[in-house]
Amino acid sequence: MEQDRKCQIGVVLGSASDLDKVSGLFKVFEEFEVQYELAIISAHRTPHLLEEYARCAPPRGIQVIIAAAGLSAALPGVLASMVSVPVIGIPVSAGTLNGMDALLSISQMPPGVPVGCVGINSAKNAALLALRILGLAHPSLRSRLSEYTQSMADDVVERARALKEEGYPIWNS
Amino acid sequence: MEQDRKCQIGVVLGSASDLDKVSGLFKVFEEFEVQYELAIISAHRTPHLLEEYARCAPPRGIQVIIAAAGLSAALPGVLASMVSVPVIGIPVSAGTLNGMDALLSISQMPPGVPVGCVGINSAKNAALLALRILGLAHPSLRSRLSEYTQSMADDVVERARALKEEGYPIWNS
Amino acid sequence: MEQDRKCQIGVVLGSASDLDKVSGLFKVFEEFEVQYELAIISAHRTPHLLEEYARCAPPRGIQVIIAAAGLSAALPGVLASMVSVPVIGIPVSAGTLNGMDALLSISQMPPGVPVGCVGINSAKNAALLALRILGLAHPSLRSRLSEYTQSMADDVVERARALKEEGYPIWNS
Amino acid sequence: MEQDRKCQIGVVLGSASDLDKVSGLFKVFEEFEVQYELAIISAHRTPHLLEEYARCAPPRGIQVIIAAAGLSAALPGVLASMVSVPVIGIPVSAGTLNGMDALLSISQMPPGVPVGCVGINSAKNAALLALRILGLAHPSLRSRLSEYTQSMADDVVERARALKEEGYPIWNS
Amino acid sequence: MEQDRKCQIGVVLGSASDLDKVSGLFKVFEEFEVQYELAIISAHRTPHLLEEYARCAPPRGIQVIIAAAGLSAALPGVLASMVSVPVIGIPVSAGTLNGMDALLSISQMPPGVPVGCVGINSAKNAALLALRILGLAHPSLRSRLSEYTQSMADDVVERARALKEEGYPIWNS
Amino acid sequence: MEQDRKCQIGVVLGSASDLDKVSGLFKVFEEFEVQYELAIISAHRTPHLLEEYARCAPPRGIQVIIAAAGLSAALPGVLASMVSVPVIGIPVSAGTLNGMDALLSISQMPPGVPVGCVGINSAKNAALLALRILGLAHPSLRSRLSEYTQSMADDVVERARALKEEGYPIWNS
Amino acid sequence: MEQDRKCQIGVVLGSASDLDKVSGLFKVFEEFEVQYELAIISAHRTPHLLEEYARCAPPRGIQVIIAAAGLSAALPGVLASMVSVPVIGIPVSAGTLNGMDALLSISQMPPGVPVGCVGINSAKNAALLALRILGLAHPSLRSRLSEYTQSMADDVVERARALKEEGYPIWNS
Amino acid sequence: MEQDRKCQIGVVLGSASDLDKVSGLFKVFEEFEVQYELAIISAHRTPHLLEEYARCAPPRGIQVIIAAAGLSAALPGVLASMVSVPVIGIPVSAGTLNGMDALLSISQMPPGVPVGCVGINSAKNAALLALRILGLAHPSLRSRLSEYTQSMADDVVERARALKEEGYPIWNS
Repeated sequence: MEQDRKCQIGVVLGSASDLDKVSGLFKVFEEFEVQYELAIISAHRTPHLLEEYARCAPPRGIQVIIAAAGLSAALPGVLASMVSVPVIGIPVSAGTLNGMDALLSISQMPPGVPVGCVGINSAKNAALLALRILGLAHPSLRSRLSEYTQSMADDVVERARALKEEGYPIWNS
Repeated sequence: MEQDRKCQIGVVLGSASDLDKVSGLFKVFEEFEVQYELAIISAHRTPHLLEEYARCAPPRGIQVIIAAAGLSAALPGVLASMVSVPVIGIPVSAGTLNGMDALLSISQMPPGVPVGCVGINSAKNAALLALRILGLAHPSLRSRLSEYTQSMADDVVERARALKEEGYPIWNS
Repeated sequence: MEQDRKCQIGVVLGSASDLDKVSGLFKVFEEFEVQYELAIISAHRTPHLLEEYARCAPPRGIQVIIAAAGLSAALPGVLASMVSVPVIGIPVSAGTLNGMDALLSISQMPPGVPVGCVGINSAKNAALLALRILGLAHPSLRSRLSEYTQSMADDVVERARALKEEGYPIWNS
Repeated sequence: MEQDRKCQIGVVLGSASDLDKVSGLFKVFEEFEVQYELAIISAHRTPHLLEEYARCAPPRGIQVIIAAAGLSAALPGVLASMVSVPVIGIPVSAGTLNGMDALLSISQMPPGVPVGCVGINSAKNAALLALRILGLAHPSLRSRLSEYTQSMADDVVERARALKEEGYPIWNS
Repeated sequence: MEQDRKCQIGVVLGSASDLDKVSGLFKVFEEFEVQYELAIISAHRTPHLLEEYARCAPPRGIQVIIAAAGLSAALPGVLASMVSVPVIGIPVSAGTLNGMDALLSISQMPPGVPVGCVGINSAKNAALLALRILGLAHPSLRSRLSEYTQSMADDVVERARALKEEGYPIWNS
Repeated sequence: MEQDRKCQIGVVLGSASDLDKVSGLFKVFEEFEVQYELAIISAHRTPHLLEEYARCAPPRGIQVIIAAAGLSAALPGVLASMVSVPVIGIPVSAGTLNGMDALLSISQMPPGVPVGCVGINSAKNAALLALRILGLAHPSLRSRLSEYTQSMADDVVERARALKEEGYPIWNS
Repeated sequence: MEQDRKCQIGVVLGSASDLDKVSGLFKVFEEFEVQYELAIISAHRTPHLLEEYARCAPPRGIQVIIAAAGLSAALPGVLASMVSVPVIGIPVSAGTLNGMDALLSISQMPPGVPVGCVGINSAKNAALLALRILGLAHPSLRSRLSEYTQSMADDVVERARALKEEGYPIWNS
Repeated sequence: MEQDRKCQIGVVLGSASDLDKVSGLFKVFEEFEVQYELAIISAHRTPHLLEEYARCAPPRGIQVIIAAAGLSAALPGVLASMVSVPVIGIPVSAGTLNGMDALLSISQMPPGVPVGCVGINSAKNAALLALRILGLAHPSLRSRLSEYTQSMADDVVERARALKEEGYPIWNS
């Protein structure tokens, strides 16, 4: 993607151990040939790093921040309170509650501090939402997103065709 | 705000009866002097209107869509599947489950169809997230968002001062 | 079953990956020698296919639609909004929330758009409910359903007898 | 509706005290000029009445049974186990758990005993699902259901128009 | 235990497949040398067997009924509505909801039909509650229950002693 | 009831403020003319009273203990650990969680310490379960319980008749 | 209490609007004649105030911090990450989820950042836990806590006596 | 740590089987070279041991008690009612509900009996909270806690560095 000479997406993980759960992020960015930067910053263990990141990332050109965290998951909200760019939160399933704790922590923000929360472990959607935001200023990215949507539709049709060959009584549109 | 000659924010409500719960949207837009358009479209009752809206809104200049719905709350997700601009979902509390149903319906989207979900009835945050997205291309809006953040901080300090006058042993920073 | 010269049951899956979770559908249809058609249509990824299916299936003779989906699970509701035949929804467990998200998304429909929801992953019951509906017009199917109910009862008794042989102090009715 | 000389819908309430919560049923039946019969039968307090009802209702012409109950809500499932006609369950909010108990009791049926569950207190949808089932054999009812769907869409448009007159910046489709 | 010449405890399982989850019942009864009878009766699949059991068990001398079921779990409540002896319900984890559905179905009974619910899969406690009830009329059983309580306490102390030998800094009472 | 010269039922409330929520207990005992004693004992605030009660109540003739508590609700379980008579627990709704906390605290007992839990605020069922237990040794009480069950059935029928007079199309059994 | 010449307890509220829900704090402190300071600091709206408070409070002599917040409730955890003194968190019920969101946000902290969470809106217990901590170094406070515990027990007994006078069959210990 | 000649931390487990889930406690205490004592005491199975422990531990010098339990989890609360030193509760996941039952039982204490609850299975945080409390009187422990916080921050940075070497586009602070 020619437009993003400089990296415009910042991904912040609350813990390096969440990396596996958000690998979908990196697949999407590779597929769209979009640069991103990755920061491992805990809202609780490295608050000063967090503040530094929040202060410096937007001036460096970061336009969207994706923050992933599990359990109490303060990271996306605290980041959102420190920047004026949009923040997308990914609740990660950690511990025993299947990510329900992180989902509530990330979505139920106090009035005035917006976070756009995606589903539990839903890294792919976080990446696509970030791309939609960047796409507002980048027509070529926007058309690639439309192609992507089309390819998902094609994939559904393809899967149906494969099932037909397996013998299922598939409906032909 | 001089930049948005044309309206860039589309608000879609699943039901006119949800209007009261999302009035915070309109207050924010007024405060920021941002234009918006309002559509009442049910994903279930007026699917054709929804399709028309999704097809026409982006070409007309709508850059962010905010969709609010209660109960099963398919609206934000179905809209997101039809456009390439970012969609923000507001789960509205309706029925007896306090909005938990809508929160799950809006946040737990299938991979490939991103919605940025805010808290239950959290219209204010949806509006602010939309403004952050628009602010990426509008420096004046971005600085107003920073001022807004500052004014929230001032408000907290002001409330503390008022409590001090009521006699509470308030800490002086 | 002689009566259903033409296929009367349409099964729609939101994703081919849900096929394993609903295989109980096909077993029931085979057992009752009832034809069905299978469509893989995502409410979010292939909205136009969905509309086409909804428009064409009833004229082709489809009398009952069974729709299965996980996560946000808009499929059954959106289908129900597009047809006048009964729609049965199967919440599929996907992601980390054990199907609770899909159960709420499918059951908590807005007023005016009815979906008959069965239990999580409960494909067998969805199939049987569809057959009960078709059975209203097909006495032979109805009597086979009664036989099926009887055979379930017999099976319970048979299992008890087997346990008795294993040495359990089984009550003899 | 000329076709239903005899009543084809049986409504069974677990308790007369649930009557207020399901009044939407009766409004729909009146609007569609459809006859129904109402039985107050508790699965737990009047098991013999339940058995009698289940044995006699289908031969009398009852084609669909709608059963509403709160709390543990065994009624729809037990009825479904005794008949071969379709049973629709309405979870009623009673006690302190907002109907979540009844929703689970009615939807999570064991394999082999199908109930089509609607949303909590969602009497209107239960009535409409029953009408869709009856409509399979009654073309005039089916076309009235299509009209009803259209009138819901019209109503949404009408509400939007009213909001426009109140001064909201309503989108014109 | 000399007193129970005739069997006084009836165990009813909703499904033979729940047998593994309630094997704790049989261990307790063996340990206390108490007779029991086991019936496999589904509230939904074999309603007539259930009625027969309810009618005949008390006259045969059954004084306490333990009923275990998963999912919608109507069995304990329906049994309780048919007898005047105490009924103890065991919610069994089945399906995807970890037994939460069965716990609510069994505990949230309508007024007038009492079931004493134990924890999810808590067969051991169901057995002990049944023995406490029988113990009211059997002093020897009651003293064995006291011994059992004492042996549990001894076991706790014994476990602590074992941990001390493993090197843990165990407190000595 | 002639047989219970001495009081056989002990009711223990964790807090006098729960009295309103369990008034159904006293109505049932009055209706059955059964004596009971009432103790206000907090597991947390008056542990020594609890121990005294547990030690003395059974020797004084108390055969069944009903314990009601809200929130963390340790009372029924701690009592059950101190006596060998059956303990029935009533989860009381207190605080903001609608009694869900108390329901889990009372039902999910550790193995070895049985409590028979009824529904949230379900004092009436707790009373009836206690009477069923006492009825095992008191034929007259047992027959009154059967009459009570019959009167509940009559009441259902009566309510149906009243609705018929109001004009509802009531089914006549 | 002579020992706390200087104030040792810091109370931090995330929002002045939570003041009503935590008034129990102030009652306890008054009853124990303990000084406290109150700060209104939002983790999200005034992060710099929070950092200042965390940096300065311990050197000023604050030994325990009580932090109350609703919704996503990051405050207690973020504070805990910035200080080495114990932090007690009070989940406040705000919004529609009855405080369940705040309870999870405050209790489910990531490893390494401890918060001692009390119940929803349970300001009184937060105050008492703070006093227990301070009491470790202040014998007079510790004995007042014992007296307080005794007075709670007396209050229970007193309430029982009052009920006896109202005619309830109260047990006499 | 030179200061704690005598052991000041008491760890009480409701069951020896919970030992694995709380092993994080012992790691922290070893790392900080802090003595502790371990008691296996069930609130339900060994109430007399519990009372003895509560009576004797504080006079022996125990300043903080950590109590871990699963399911109904009465242990921390009952202990807290018997002592005046701070009690920290660890909800342990046991049974099928992932520790949600224990979390509610331990956090939702009645007013007057404070427990500081940490996250489910969060033994490490319980240990650190205990050390923070002891640190109030032990400056050397307090500075070690600050070092610990610093080492956690260093660890986050180190993990980021390792990811950089793996090729991730890591942000350099």
